Amino acid sequence: MDDEHGKKHMAQSYKIDKLKETVAQSLTQLGWKIVNTIEDGTFPEIQLPLRATSNIIYDPNLRQYVLGAKRVLRTTKNVKHLRPFAQLIWISSFAKKLIKVGKTSTLRDTYYVAIGEGMDFEGQNESDNIIIELESLLGYPREDFNIFPEERASIYGDLVIEYTVPGFRGKRVDLSSHPDGFAIGPALTTAEFVKCGAEVLFVIEKGAVFARFVEEGADKKYKALLLHTAGQSPRNARKLIRRLNEELNLPVYIFADADPFGVHIASVIVHGSAISAHLRELNIPDAVWAGLYASDIIKYKLPSMKFTEQDAKRLDELKRDPRYQADPWKRELGVFSKIGRKAELEAFSRYGLEFIVEEFLPERLAELTKR
Amino acid sequence: MDDEHGKKHMAQSYKIDKLKETVAQSLTQLGWKIVNTIEDGTFPEIQLPLRATSNIIYDPNLRQYVLGAKRVLRTTKNVKHLRPFAQLIWISSFAKKLIKVGKTSTLRDTYYVAIGEGMDFEGQNESDNIIIELESLLGYPREDFNIFPEERASIYGDLVIEYTVPGFRGKRVDLSSHPDGFAIGPALTTAEFVKCGAEVLFVIEKGAVFARFVEEGADKKYKALLLHTAGQSPRNARKLIRRLNEELNLPVYIFADADPFGVHIASVIVHGSAISAHLRELNIPDAVWAGLYASDIIKYKLPSMKFTEQDAKRLDELKRDPRYQADPWKRELGVFSKIGRKAELEAFSRYGLEFIVEEFLPERLAELTKR
Repeated sequence: MDDEHGKKHMAQSYKIDKLKETVAQSLTQLGWKIVNTIEDGTFPEIQLPLRATSNIIYDPNLRQYVLGAKRVLRTTKNVKHLRPFAQLIWISSFAKKLIKVGKTSTLRDTYYVAIGEGMDFEGQNESDNIIIELESLLGYPREDFNIFPEERASIYGDLVIEYTVPGFRGKRVDLSSHPDGFAIGPALTTAEFVKCGAEVLFVIEKGAVFARFVEEGADKKYKALLLHTAGQSPRNARKLIRRLNEELNLPVYIFADADPFGVHIASVIVHGSAISAHLRELNIPDAVWAGLYASDIIKYKLPSMKFTEQDAKRLDELKRDPRYQADPWKRELGVFSKIGRKAELEAFSRYGLEFIVEEFLPERLAELTKR
Repeated sequence: MDDEHGKKHMAQSYKIDKLKETVAQSLTQLGWKIVNTIEDGTFPEIQLPLRATSNIIYDPNLRQYVLGAKRVLRTTKNVKHLRPFAQLIWISSFAKKLIKVGKTSTLRDTYYVAIGEGMDFEGQNESDNIIIELESLLGYPREDFNIFPEERASIYGDLVIEYTVPGFRGKRVDLSSHPDGFAIGPALTTAEFVKCGAEVLFVIEKGAVFARFVEEGADKKYKALLLHTAGQSPRNARKLIRRLNEELNLPVYIFADADPFGVHIASVIVHGSAISAHLRELNIPDAVWAGLYASDIIKYKLPSMKFTEQDAKRLDELKRDPRYQADPWKRELGVFSKIGRKAELEAFSRYGLEFIVEEFLPERLAELTKR
């Protein structure tokens, strides 16, 4: 281990430990604030950021949609507030316990633990919502208090990582050592980047296209890391993309199907999701939507399918969404409206299995870097 | 590399090369048969196994449902047969090309390549069906002619593998080196097992429960490999489970949700799927369904949900299915009927996050090994 790495490794382990400590402190403070208020003989209350469209604004510095300054008061003076107040306190205490014992949970697990401890939740929706409230109150995503999404995404390429999770701290793995890909879970998301030979990151919606990129050696030809989101990118994966972009300065190109759902997959990676407007650092403003565009259906004469009613409805929603008012988004949504057809990334296989990596990819990268 | 391993490694690489050669030969023979018939001035024809319920029988030796002896004739004398005949020949020729150049494809990619080469397929359903016909004709699963499913499942544990795929042949990876899991794709499915410290395989439907097993150290406590199917087990994963069971003699225990869909996930791993009755070696007759049982909902007082209409309909289908006529299947379907409720694996978290690994798992394993 050389000095430079020694320092970097310290930095990441230190950063993770520090982060967990900070979140645990915020939770402790929240607890003390409530205890103190009760001991003072007054009704405890919490100010929560208002999570509603009326309070979602675009921050040009962060280049993402964020919550504005509006807040709502949750007070134990109001009998109707008692239930969600108690729920929020329970979730906060569970989160602190998770950090303390160094375990992770999921939204679903958390719901069942709550049920087991006699907390009154109507269903998982209700506990999920309280967890989001806690995120907005603390300003930290739930991963930072150890409530992780299920892993589904995977990554492959010339990157050596070193774990910071308990039991694996200090161990290393080379992400080019397994061509089927490494699952992206808590361990990978929080790992230190030790050594990276890649110069770009390709984010791919479809497993078949990810496998195609590996097989055609796109990682070597373009010095690329390949990341498979398996549909809408899980938060684990978005966090990892953000870190690869920020810490390693890797430019990010996103490849999704040419349909309203594919467009939205790309947009959520770039702009963040509406449901996460209360959070930072889960979007990648510099990531570039690299296709498949509606105009590619025409340009490349791709086999395409007619829009379903659902597609048309989704397209209308996107056209009204503030995240789609600039090009290429606006332009391509217009083309979708005009042609009313969609195509999948796999459609390039009509020109043979190599086409997407050998022909489409260099053309698209040349177009995008020229701009 | 010691001698013993040297020999074993040769064996697996040799086995894979030999298999591909055998499949390629069958494809070549199919081609010659047709060419020769045409040169003889007669109409070429193909005998296909009948893939219909009337031809699905239980084979007590293989302990799985297989196709019987009934066959259907596809003949170019019949104008109506010309189209599927041509389609089958095209798929056969594409399969041979894949083996020859050492590339893989997916069902979807194959459809698009067909479109691109001017083959007339109404939609992907039609090409998928012809690929299944080719499987039944050759008696080999499509993975053996390089048409792979999308990877989604993953694995973790004390197993060192050595790849046989081009570009990675001879390289090794330790599957305990990445706690988030290794994606199960073509490379992992065909790899040599070099060194295994595990004595049992736990197959898990849910990602959250897989993560829980890793976090609670179930791999160490039970010397277990952990495999996450992410819902209905993909064929890649079933193939790998079969190999781990046969080649390493690992007993297999399956954990799925206590609902008709979870039961079916377990059953497909044990008995095979109806759609794959024309294939061998994709099921694991010795695998044991280890839960979650309907009776566990009562026994462990688990938080449960009422059956939806869909659940009730699915339960009725299962009760009529020949694969569910023995215990524990029959017994547990009966309990489902009686209580009309379902529960998820995560429901054990009502007793704390450790419960499923610390309490439920040893109890269930003791019950199952006692029998």
